[in-house]
Amino acid sequence: MLVVQKYGGSSVADPERIHRVARRVIECKEAGNDVVVVVSAMGDTTDDLIDLVKKITDKPSDREYDMLLSTGEQVSIALLAMAIHSYGHQVISLTGPQAGIKTNEVYNKAKITNIRPQRLQAELAKGQIVVVAGFQGINENDDITTLGRGGSDTTAVALAAALKADVCEIFTDVDGVYTTDPRMVPQAQKLDSISYDEMLELASLGALVLQPRAVEFAKHYNVLLHVRSSFNHNEGTIVKGVDQVEKERVVSGIAHDLNVAKIALFDVPDQPGIASKVFKVLADANVNVDMIVQSTMRNDSNDISFTCPHDDLKKAIEAMEEITKTIGAKGFSYDEEVAKVSIVGAGMVSNPGVAAKMFEALADEDVNIEMIATSEIKVSCIIKASQVKLAVLALHNKFELEKLGSSVKS
Amino acid sequence: MLVVQKYGGSSVADPERIHRVARRVIECKEAGNDVVVVVSAMGDTTDDLIDLVKKITDKPSDREYDMLLSTGEQVSIALLAMAIHSYGHQVISLTGPQAGIKTNEVYNKAKITNIRPQRLQAELAKGQIVVVAGFQGINENDDITTLGRGGSDTTAVALAAALKADVCEIFTDVDGVYTTDPRMVPQAQKLDSISYDEMLELASLGALVLQPRAVEFAKHYNVLLHVRSSFNHNEGTIVKGVDQVEKERVVSGIAHDLNVAKIALFDVPDQPGIASKVFKVLADANVNVDMIVQSTMRNDSNDISFTCPHDDLKKAIEAMEEITKTIGAKGFSYDEEVAKVSIVGAGMVSNPGVAAKMFEALADEDVNIEMIATSEIKVSCIIKASQVKLAVLALHNKFELEKLGSSVKS
Repeated sequence: MLVVQKYGGSSVADPERIHRVARRVIECKEAGNDVVVVVSAMGDTTDDLIDLVKKITDKPSDREYDMLLSTGEQVSIALLAMAIHSYGHQVISLTGPQAGIKTNEVYNKAKITNIRPQRLQAELAKGQIVVVAGFQGINENDDITTLGRGGSDTTAVALAAALKADVCEIFTDVDGVYTTDPRMVPQAQKLDSISYDEMLELASLGALVLQPRAVEFAKHYNVLLHVRSSFNHNEGTIVKGVDQVEKERVVSGIAHDLNVAKIALFDVPDQPGIASKVFKVLADANVNVDMIVQSTMRNDSNDISFTCPHDDLKKAIEAMEEITKTIGAKGFSYDEEVAKVSIVGAGMVSNPGVAAKMFEALADEDVNIEMIATSEIKVSCIIKASQVKLAVLALHNKFELEKLGSSVKS
Repeated sequence: MLVVQKYGGSSVADPERIHRVARRVIECKEAGNDVVVVVSAMGDTTDDLIDLVKKITDKPSDREYDMLLSTGEQVSIALLAMAIHSYGHQVISLTGPQAGIKTNEVYNKAKITNIRPQRLQAELAKGQIVVVAGFQGINENDDITTLGRGGSDTTAVALAAALKADVCEIFTDVDGVYTTDPRMVPQAQKLDSISYDEMLELASLGALVLQPRAVEFAKHYNVLLHVRSSFNHNEGTIVKGVDQVEKERVVSGIAHDLNVAKIALFDVPDQPGIASKVFKVLADANVNVDMIVQSTMRNDSNDISFTCPHDDLKKAIEAMEEITKTIGAKGFSYDEEVAKVSIVGAGMVSNPGVAAKMFEALADEDVNIEMIATSEIKVSCIIKASQVKLAVLALHNKFELEKLGSSVKS
């Protein structure tokens, strides 16, 4: 088998943990596999580098920022290779550029455009364990780029795709993907498997075991993912295509997100092009808009509501002050004390009444629903932030998720 | 003019100093020059990385060691480029590999074999200040190498040669090259100029303002060096070809070195091949032998004495225990409490009696000479370590070096 393993920054935060990762990698190699290991920067390294930048300038050049940050992963790969070598195994570290990871020219959040795995394959053919720096690549100008937050997941999945690896193991500090946040709901269950689409929804809803872009990549190239703990040898959660996942499961998980603010624009004239103007202004202000709801209140005007992360609220308010005048809306309000709860499940499509069951569960607990958005495999509701725990518990019970997968204590 | 500037690790040790270097670079650019800047790793970064290695393994792979250490300079170039950029100047940083610095395959102390300056020249042509990582390059396998201690000097000189720069400015924490150590002799004078050969002798004798390899490189490609302070704008010392230096100066400087141990081998049979056997054993043991003196005592046996750095003494003693038996010598002695004082001057060749004058000066102060070695532009004596200050002062006075160059206080 060819196995790609990915370890995050907390797994390599100090020399002792680096040695633990080294032994885990060697286990996999000694089981007869070819092994490629992708690592992130050690613990707080990236934050420390960013602190240094702040002491130099408020507006660092994007290119130089990537030049700087990419050193974090380069330190990790060298140290991990030394640790593996100290156990007598053949190993070589490669930077993103050396591993042939080509990206577009967008610094700080570059996208992988191509992988030239020749060097990597040659090293594997020599029997080497190959340790690759996550999060980084090289653009057409021969300049170093970084892939943005969680980029090491994407590196691992992209390498697994390019090398046609049998599995891409993502090591985290949890045992796998859960039906909901186990810190909030003790009955939360670890799922044995989940589809790419469900994982995508869960990831983008704040269940951050896997970066959404990495999941998209895995879906596109059909890379089998195994999300598992770096602290034990339990089987984790397999992420794979929907046809490989048991379809009878209607709802697979409950996600929640507290990093949500709601903005409502009142009495917007009911004319074509109004919504486009509103969201153009928000886009120009770089506001990350999530849910959008428009409802007709009277014959001649609408209310438009949307949500965004807390960090973008200030920009959104400024944009709304501008737009209310331009389009002749009556005004707007905002609320930071809201949360999003979502149910996710690939089986929803063929099971009518799932949304209704969700609303019923919330109503039974006196949870007021302020906004609703649906997709093929997800229903999300905006509720009061103070009721989020109550809501998640109610939904977990309603859809009997404690009967899924293995229990937390396993 | 095209100017290459080199700043060492202490010049970029913290954000404030990085800003100071940035302003100095910009001054040079605003004076109408094209500027290439070579920097080392910030302050203690390299030592911190080495400490990390020690916690991982006793025997790090040489390749991974270079992969690790090269990150130090990459951090410096990114931060310096950000600082220069913050003043509104166009700037780009390049790693050693990006700057086209090709080396042989010897990790940890690679030698530059070739420079492909196309990228660098293209950036200069765009009006950019170019900041290059010192100390590092890339070998034929596309792997990162480092040049060993003081490698950034070599990077700067090699780039100056490849770009045909008008001058290579080496910034240090002293004002230039002195007739002797100003901390020991207050009358020490800064030299306005010195020849490559003299600088080489001074450098290899412990006056560490410039790395010997860098001086050799400068001599070979006739690169004009300017050693000057990063703390003020005083003219420093120009290092250039001997025909460009005032030749009437007989002695340019006095060097001393306390890191010396002396080993004497007694009653060595006077047979061909004996010396070769002795020094073969020392070479095999990696002992860095400096001075060698052989004297015939009687008709049938010799004494052989040599010096080495303190760190190598233990290995040297082990080698001597082995060799005395093999070759039938009577025994050996060693002494750590010795020092080397040297006079250096390109004018010596054409001025007989310089050595005699040196011995006279030492005799006048009752300094006993234990070994003597001479080259075309240098005379070195081994004396008691306790007398080194006395000897340096006496020599400085004897050769009237206080009349050379500008005074320390200038």
